[in-house]
Amino acid sequence: MTGRVGRRAGESGTSEAILEAARTQFAEHGYRGATIRAIAGKAGVDPALVHHFYGTKEALFAAAMQLPIVPSQVLTAALEAGRDAPALGEHIVRTALTLWESPGLKDTFLGLFKSATTSESAAVMLREFLAESILGTIARVTGIGGSSAEVQYRVALVASQMIGLAVARLVLKLPAIADASIDELAASIGPTLERYLSGEIVLPE
Amino acid sequence: MTGRVGRRAGESGTSEAILEAARTQFAEHGYRGATIRAIAGKAGVDPALVHHFYGTKEALFAAAMQLPIVPSQVLTAALEAGRDAPALGEHIVRTALTLWESPGLKDTFLGLFKSATTSESAAVMLREFLAESILGTIARVTGIGGSSAEVQYRVALVASQMIGLAVARLVLKLPAIADASIDELAASIGPTLERYLSGEIVLPE
Repeated sequence: MTGRVGRRAGESGTSEAILEAARTQFAEHGYRGATIRAIAGKAGVDPALVHHFYGTKEALFAAAMQLPIVPSQVLTAALEAGRDAPALGEHIVRTALTLWESPGLKDTFLGLFKSATTSESAAVMLREFLAESILGTIARVTGIGGSSAEVQYRVALVASQMIGLAVARLVLKLPAIADASIDELAASIGPTLERYLSGEIVLPE
Repeated sequence: MTGRVGRRAGESGTSEAILEAARTQFAEHGYRGATIRAIAGKAGVDPALVHHFYGTKEALFAAAMQLPIVPSQVLTAALEAGRDAPALGEHIVRTALTLWESPGLKDTFLGLFKSATTSESAAVMLREFLAESILGTIARVTGIGGSSAEVQYRVALVASQMIGLAVARLVLKLPAIADASIDELAASIGPTLERYLSGEIVLPE
């Protein structure tokens, strides 16, 4: 059914070898440490071919993890559409919940999360991916100002609320959170995100 | 080393049999569904003996899960001490972080959380325990008013923030959150909890 080990001739054999090498490299070296060059070397192909097939490291990561989308692309589009909305925080909550609960993504999200709680290397991979791809996108698109440390702290606070919302709703299924509508949660939690992004908060020294 | 199966004579054999039966019943029937009577039956002892050894269902749960404390007791004491503090939200964040990071509790917390992400029955158990023991205690001690549905929604919002803080700091170890001090996190996140507990929020219909 799937290509036999060692089959490299056809295009699908090659792309499967690249994805296999990517999964190994991401697991062993984290999201930040894995390089297209090393993945190509492991798969026995030219780095240019990896770029040709997948474009960016993030898109390769998305394909290797079987994400149906490239997160930063979808997030950028959604955040840009709502950047001038009166309630950016609500817009972020609504965007995230809608994405997580889309059919192909929910199981992948839960799978990545499960790996991160049971394996240290998967936690490193998810942490670096979150920091570079997701939090970096939020910082860039919302255009929050301040020093680099301040921006990182603000988006990490946003992450702390959104990760907890995901766990409460999708993993633990706490009734009051699981039964609320996306609009209700966006209205309740949106102002929290706005304060974290641009309100007065005490910053770490 | 540990008591052999079937050994019931000595007190330690009996209490181990009770804890074993408790773990099975909590896993099979959830925290809410498990009863002292059924646990006693499974362990082949009188329910009065279980009460004598462990007191409440929560204390038995804590012992079975090897929690070094009975959560609602510690939480009640800590919350009561800070109930009249000017910043209740900060006090809750500080209490929770100090508890999670105390030596005996951190690994147990991570273990329970890991189980909940990988097993549906463990998720049910943790959800019901959180709802009955932790969220119920927060609602009672902080004395937030409103209908039962409103109180449940408000404390579930608090849980969504605190669960995410725990995951970001202890599981994913997001640098900006992992490196901040407890006081800094309490100052940043405390006001969120206060709004959830007693501020103006949109309630689900």
